[in-house]
Amino acid sequence: MVEIAADPTHPRYQSLLMRHRLEEAEKKGMLAGSALIAHGRGEAYDYLLGEQSIPSAKAATKQALAHLLSAHHPVISLNGNAVALAGKELLHLADQLGCPVEINIFYRTPERMEALIGHLTQLKVEHSLDVEILGAEPDARIPGLEGPRANCVKRGIFDSDVLLVPLEDGDRCEALMAMGKTVLVIDLNPLSRTAQMASVTMVDELSRVVGNMNRILLSKERPKVSEEYLNESSLQDALNHIKDFLTKTD
Amino acid sequence: MVEIAADPTHPRYQSLLMRHRLEEAEKKGMLAGSALIAHGRGEAYDYLLGEQSIPSAKAATKQALAHLLSAHHPVISLNGNAVALAGKELLHLADQLGCPVEINIFYRTPERMEALIGHLTQLKVEHSLDVEILGAEPDARIPGLEGPRANCVKRGIFDSDVLLVPLEDGDRCEALMAMGKTVLVIDLNPLSRTAQMASVTMVDELSRVVGNMNRILLSKERPKVSEEYLNESSLQDALNHIKDFLTKTD
Repeated sequence: MVEIAADPTHPRYQSLLMRHRLEEAEKKGMLAGSALIAHGRGEAYDYLLGEQSIPSAKAATKQALAHLLSAHHPVISLNGNAVALAGKELLHLADQLGCPVEINIFYRTPERMEALIGHLTQLKVEHSLDVEILGAEPDARIPGLEGPRANCVKRGIFDSDVLLVPLEDGDRCEALMAMGKTVLVIDLNPLSRTAQMASVTMVDELSRVVGNMNRILLSKERPKVSEEYLNESSLQDALNHIKDFLTKTD
Repeated sequence: MVEIAADPTHPRYQSLLMRHRLEEAEKKGMLAGSALIAHGRGEAYDYLLGEQSIPSAKAATKQALAHLLSAHHPVISLNGNAVALAGKELLHLADQLGCPVEINIFYRTPERMEALIGHLTQLKVEHSLDVEILGAEPDARIPGLEGPRANCVKRGIFDSDVLLVPLEDGDRCEALMAMGKTVLVIDLNPLSRTAQMASVTMVDELSRVVGNMNRILLSKERPKVSEEYLNESSLQDALNHIKDFLTKTD
């Protein structure tokens, strides 16, 4: 059992809270076997970033939000870890954007789908959020992928023009980009294939990104898509930040 | 279920094999809740090191082995992840060194202790290894630590002069150093408190280190403790290696 500090100002509070959320999600059968290992990898990169939203990540977040706001058919794709770490906050974001969420998991089993849909539906009711939850009945396939991981919903991910996919794997990110979509990803490893391939990469921790997006929307700020935004520069900035961290703490 | 490539030359073979071993250990109740997250953190640092034993890590491994060979009372301390990832190989090492192993876990429960001792005993019998497995009946305490994590065995860890502790946490490493022991650690994060405090830090993946140690001993090489060895230099070299990796892959 993860011990959470009672005091939110405790330096490890956020990190321990995220672990606690994953533990709860595990008990509910929401996670794949590789979920905790993937989270640990994220923790290591976040440590190297100083566990903060660095300026380039904040700029990427604004750019991503601008794409979502100007989209014809935005969709938020959710996997097990995303639901576990920030399910409520992601539903708030979808509610503010007026877009659906679609559960789209790599290791798809009926039990996991049911656990994830059940959990999100409960959050939606508890917080009176007006969000459509897609994914239970896939009726389309992402071209170029094999097996159940290609499954998606026609009027959801398949027809979306702008897609927020936190924590996506490289193959699926590539296949979604090949469909001509604007793909917005959250990935703490600036060298991952997903990070390198996406339209906009937020090198930041998921719950911080979603918190930042919700705060911007609540403040009535409506960012515009910047023509000057270069994803490579954003990734390079994250790499430089990690290198500086490794140098300063020598 | 983790899929393991049938072909050991597959680039992800070792990494997937380690995940598979953890999954098996999880099923047997050998792991704490935080074990998979900790492994994921290790995976991220290993990726940044190029998933290889870098020269400074090999030098640290020789130095650690030299300390074990020249010790009066060497002991290998094992936690859940160490047993899961390289239980058999660690017993082979203890057999070659003629030293006991002691199970010493951070989150101690009777069920986990029983699962770990059962698994090690089975391996010992299967491979006809002559190794004493300590830990079931702690009769001493590591000064400066609170609660069950201070428990240890008098004629094991407590009386040891040289201690190999793969994957140790910072507090316990500090307490063991304060007892005046030579503490040899395996830690993929060169910035961790454990890595920074130990007598010899091998910034390398556990199963690779144990494999390297066993190969050296089988080759009849008997390394001598080097007076020139500087642990800070070894850590600095690992940091430089990661920085080079981040620069080359920009």
